[in-house]
Amino acid sequence: MNKISNVTVLGGGILGSQIAFHAAYRNFNVVIYDLSADLYNKIIAQFYLLKDFYIQEAHVSESDMEEVFNRISYSFDLKEAVEDADLVIEAIPENKEMKQELYQNLAQVAPQKTIFATNSSTMLPSSLAGYTGRPDKFLALHFANLLFRYNIVEVMGHPGTDQNIFRTVVDFSKELGMEPIEIKKEKNGYVLNSLLIPLLSAASELFITGVADIETIDKTWKMATGSPAGPFQIYDAIGLNTIYNIAQNGDVKSKLFAHFLKENYINKGKMGYLSGEGFYKYPPNNDINV
Amino acid sequence: MNKISNVTVLGGGILGSQIAFHAAYRNFNVVIYDLSADLYNKIIAQFYLLKDFYIQEAHVSESDMEEVFNRISYSFDLKEAVEDADLVIEAIPENKEMKQELYQNLAQVAPQKTIFATNSSTMLPSSLAGYTGRPDKFLALHFANLLFRYNIVEVMGHPGTDQNIFRTVVDFSKELGMEPIEIKKEKNGYVLNSLLIPLLSAASELFITGVADIETIDKTWKMATGSPAGPFQIYDAIGLNTIYNIAQNGDVKSKLFAHFLKENYINKGKMGYLSGEGFYKYPPNNDINV
Repeated sequence: MNKISNVTVLGGGILGSQIAFHAAYRNFNVVIYDLSADLYNKIIAQFYLLKDFYIQEAHVSESDMEEVFNRISYSFDLKEAVEDADLVIEAIPENKEMKQELYQNLAQVAPQKTIFATNSSTMLPSSLAGYTGRPDKFLALHFANLLFRYNIVEVMGHPGTDQNIFRTVVDFSKELGMEPIEIKKEKNGYVLNSLLIPLLSAASELFITGVADIETIDKTWKMATGSPAGPFQIYDAIGLNTIYNIAQNGDVKSKLFAHFLKENYINKGKMGYLSGEGFYKYPPNNDINV
Repeated sequence: MNKISNVTVLGGGILGSQIAFHAAYRNFNVVIYDLSADLYNKIIAQFYLLKDFYIQEAHVSESDMEEVFNRISYSFDLKEAVEDADLVIEAIPENKEMKQELYQNLAQVAPQKTIFATNSSTMLPSSLAGYTGRPDKFLALHFANLLFRYNIVEVMGHPGTDQNIFRTVVDFSKELGMEPIEIKKEKNGYVLNSLLIPLLSAASELFITGVADIETIDKTWKMATGSPAGPFQIYDAIGLNTIYNIAQNGDVKSKLFAHFLKENYINKGKMGYLSGEGFYKYPPNNDINV
């Protein structure tokens, strides 16, 4: 069984930079790859933001954080980025053609040993496996946003994934300090979103059809289940723009909710927790409850 | 606006006796009515069980509890049971014909002033209003099991409910020490079950289709949302027999889950939390987490 030491993250967006930073924090050698050198400054800016989070939340020292930065290198050349990689984690935008092209290129330049993992939230690994040149060494490794706080990662193969590779990636997740959620069968939405979306949809339907108001729905959920956050607080945590994009593709009631979100929140810059306001207000330094 | 002092609870089952006991605990004069004097001993036995709960959970003294018993009277005659009632709370079995007949009898014998409230989980108040002889003074007041612990009650009218009556019952709920969940429009499942059922169904579908095991599903939910209980722990709290009855009336996957429940749990006496074992084991005196 392979042992993972060198990790290359493809894509320096919100989640890609979180994955790269966390892997370096947990002592892996990390290369982060993005398409253009223009993005370098953006990635660095995100790393500095993350550094502050880790110092605050994980009580890590400034000097330990310097070591983390020393374990990360940057590359804008795919071949160079993956030449020593034991594991490549792909976290580029959710565009099927872009992903297919990337995997086709990757298949040409990555060493034989390299495992490929996609962080896609919306595409099943079986829909990409054919482009990887190594379907047996390909699977999904799905991180949640703010991964350093929630500490779960979903591991999901496709029917052609080698079970030893699956175990290797589960073990890697544990070395990342994450609780691996082992998914036994391909499923859209993995486990977490398969549970979360029906709850959230039911909440927005109750609201948009006039059955109850937002505060009442959240209060009911929290009091009856002991959960720290109600559905609309979870919406705020996910971000209303993401929710808008999902709701727009739903049924009639879902589309009504999308329209309501756009008119009353998104157009007013209320994007949820990170923007300081969504369904609720989040004063600076006042931590969210989810 | 009416002020509620005298409450009559119709039906001495699990929830009926909890409602009656709690109302007496909160200083209302309570009559509990059931069909036959044979049930008297059963009701008393439940009250003694509840007494121990209140002493343990609400830190009430034995002598205070005696006062509670003094505020409860028992009746097996409907006319006598409601002759002074400001509010009648109906908590008889979920059988439509039984309820219709009861409301027809009640309409004959109850004073003009009496408000009627149904605790039905499955029937909309509009489906019963026509039998009450006073649709404007009729609404649903839906308590959750273990109501003294969760402290929420859902208040839901039908289109003909007088808004003053609705407010009176909301105020009564507050005097009960409950948080009233005000539902603005009739909805099957009220707010709580409208949220809970989609989450629970998604969880059983993930399990029954082999996507993930029970512990993984619960762990994912708890870690990602901070909730104290995962879906299968909530199933145990509700009781697997109730879940079986609901699942049997669902789609194919739901029926598969019902069959699984019967074979592996119900037939073996594992009925959930109250029986000491369901999906999880609950040793005596080890409190549940929901």
